[in-house]
Amino acid sequence: MVEGIGIVGGGQLGRMLTEAAHPLGSHVTVLDPTPDAPATKAGAEQLLGGLHDPEAIARLAAATDVVTWEIEHINADALEKLVRDGFNVQPSPTTLKTIQDKLVQKTMLREAGLPVADFLALDTGPSSQAHGQQLREVTQALGGAVIFKTRRGGYDGRGNHVFTGDVDQLDTALGGDWVDLYAEKIIPFEKELSVLAARDVYGNIAVYPTVETVHEDNICHTVVFPANLRPALAERAQDIAHETMRQLEGAGVFAIEMFVTESEVLINEIAPRVHNSGHHTIEANVTSQFEQHIRAITGMPLGSTAPRSPAAAMVNVLGTREEPLNRVGLDRVLAEPDTHPHYYGKSSRPARKIGHITVLGDRSEDVLDRARRAREALVI
Amino acid sequence: MVEGIGIVGGGQLGRMLTEAAHPLGSHVTVLDPTPDAPATKAGAEQLLGGLHDPEAIARLAAATDVVTWEIEHINADALEKLVRDGFNVQPSPTTLKTIQDKLVQKTMLREAGLPVADFLALDTGPSSQAHGQQLREVTQALGGAVIFKTRRGGYDGRGNHVFTGDVDQLDTALGGDWVDLYAEKIIPFEKELSVLAARDVYGNIAVYPTVETVHEDNICHTVVFPANLRPALAERAQDIAHETMRQLEGAGVFAIEMFVTESEVLINEIAPRVHNSGHHTIEANVTSQFEQHIRAITGMPLGSTAPRSPAAAMVNVLGTREEPLNRVGLDRVLAEPDTHPHYYGKSSRPARKIGHITVLGDRSEDVLDRARRAREALVI
Repeated sequence: MVEGIGIVGGGQLGRMLTEAAHPLGSHVTVLDPTPDAPATKAGAEQLLGGLHDPEAIARLAAATDVVTWEIEHINADALEKLVRDGFNVQPSPTTLKTIQDKLVQKTMLREAGLPVADFLALDTGPSSQAHGQQLREVTQALGGAVIFKTRRGGYDGRGNHVFTGDVDQLDTALGGDWVDLYAEKIIPFEKELSVLAARDVYGNIAVYPTVETVHEDNICHTVVFPANLRPALAERAQDIAHETMRQLEGAGVFAIEMFVTESEVLINEIAPRVHNSGHHTIEANVTSQFEQHIRAITGMPLGSTAPRSPAAAMVNVLGTREEPLNRVGLDRVLAEPDTHPHYYGKSSRPARKIGHITVLGDRSEDVLDRARRAREALVI
Repeated sequence: MVEGIGIVGGGQLGRMLTEAAHPLGSHVTVLDPTPDAPATKAGAEQLLGGLHDPEAIARLAAATDVVTWEIEHINADALEKLVRDGFNVQPSPTTLKTIQDKLVQKTMLREAGLPVADFLALDTGPSSQAHGQQLREVTQALGGAVIFKTRRGGYDGRGNHVFTGDVDQLDTALGGDWVDLYAEKIIPFEKELSVLAARDVYGNIAVYPTVETVHEDNICHTVVFPANLRPALAERAQDIAHETMRQLEGAGVFAIEMFVTESEVLINEIAPRVHNSGHHTIEANVTSQFEQHIRAITGMPLGSTAPRSPAAAMVNVLGTREEPLNRVGLDRVLAEPDTHPHYYGKSSRPARKIGHITVLGDRSEDVLDRARRAREALVI
């Protein structure tokens, strides 16, 4: 019986996992370097330690029955060693490792026949001067506008650099550090989508309905269900999600982020964890992504991914300046019908995700408007 | 801005209040005499102290912005003193005091023109011998079968004694302690109902749909929504709930428990708090009773009480013997559609409420069957 869950990372995702784990009778311990991590305020215990610290990760495993994570920038080697030592780690650290390196991730997807934008490996080194010719060759080979991406550690758009043709400008943007880049063709997309999916330890797969995501400043700002798609593309997105899940190993929730062009659906990237694009599932679906992940990693059957509401929208609430959390305007938000604010118990600072608001209703345009208005009512 | 919530009592009701308070950005501190009370496992802080200890209650008030409770058998005088000293206590301790004494409660309801079973005060003293004649007079005056009830401190049927006409038997049942009894006519009822209702600090009232409750051994075992009632009686139950709320003071959730006879609806008793008959609202209604109570006492507007599902059933999970919590059978429960188990983080002992299961669906008979089968799947 899997009762003690260890989560590497104790932020808002760890917190919402904790909230889902408790009613199912599990205990949660998070590993996080910052004392009083958000998850602890929902009753998780905390081991103080770094997300890359093998010794701390081993302590987490020793104290729990299964180890998982809420963030992908963690020590995958240490997790692979845990598996070799007989510990239960979900999903597979090998899959985590594949996903951590975007070039390896894209290569895996392309080899599996899944649709991704054209990309090329770069043989980068310590100085920009050596690369002018190479960059021009890569750009030409990809036949269009190109973005250079950091292979590892990128997050919310950090590590992505659009190439304007000016090598010096790119060098400045990179701070002179050219290691671990690859090149990707820029796709002029119409929409961004996300499909959440889960696998249990027996191999069963459950896929959530496709949602539309709108990124602002590369952060997932709004999510709308249902996605407004032509039927062929809607079916394609769900098929891609199923096929992608067959390529990934281990139990748990994954988020498969996609681009839609006029005629096709491409995978942008995969998050090997619960995801910002699934927060609406707390109210809008029979089983939330957080409960689904807990079910999956503890050996329980998956729950229904069916929607409970014809439409739902989620907006992130971002901090604007350094200050303690305030709730000015919350009364106005709570006066709106079927509107569900979630604070994460964090103090405010610029662009920090301090909460989200989910709105349920009958039509996607309507819930999105209402969610945005609710966010504007808060004085952060 | 009301951010710090103090709850007298830290059991499962305090725990579910805590779970509702966190996403709204509130902190919770519970006062409970037992270390590691269930609410602490959901992230509440705990003050260790007795529910009747005026000094501990004053400390709770000093540490928080509003004081409320999850159990009614607490020190109402201490709470009234807090109000006189300028502290924010919700709902009104005076209403709590009225409800704590069932004779005073029934008298208040009858004087307000609300329907209750006939009852009579008893002038009881220390010995049974003195009361034989009085009991016979009271029984005759009420004109039927009579139940003697403890005015204060009764809970889940404890303190209720059906009078068979045998004074010695009653004396034995009471352990010779005749103080604080009153007599009530036994009503041969068809069904038991519960209506949850809330008031905010501005006086607005929101009433939940009526549910049917089935008590076994005087504990609320199952709750079914919607209640199967003739239209006239259904309307009557909602009207009674509204009128009852107008008699009670302060902000918060109340549970109004009722009997239905062939032709009328009578109030059985009022709980001045969130209630076992409202656990299904977590999944089955737009706003759960727990979130509603938090909204009410923190000065926020009330949320919608509308159902999200055509039908819902809730069953309590009771312990059968002394043992640590086990989750044997949980996988079978989670394999059932739209079935939501909630463990309270308590160890098992005979008849202890250690959790509940809510099932949503389309028809009340169906959800009740499914909920009962789910409970049977657990090996407690």
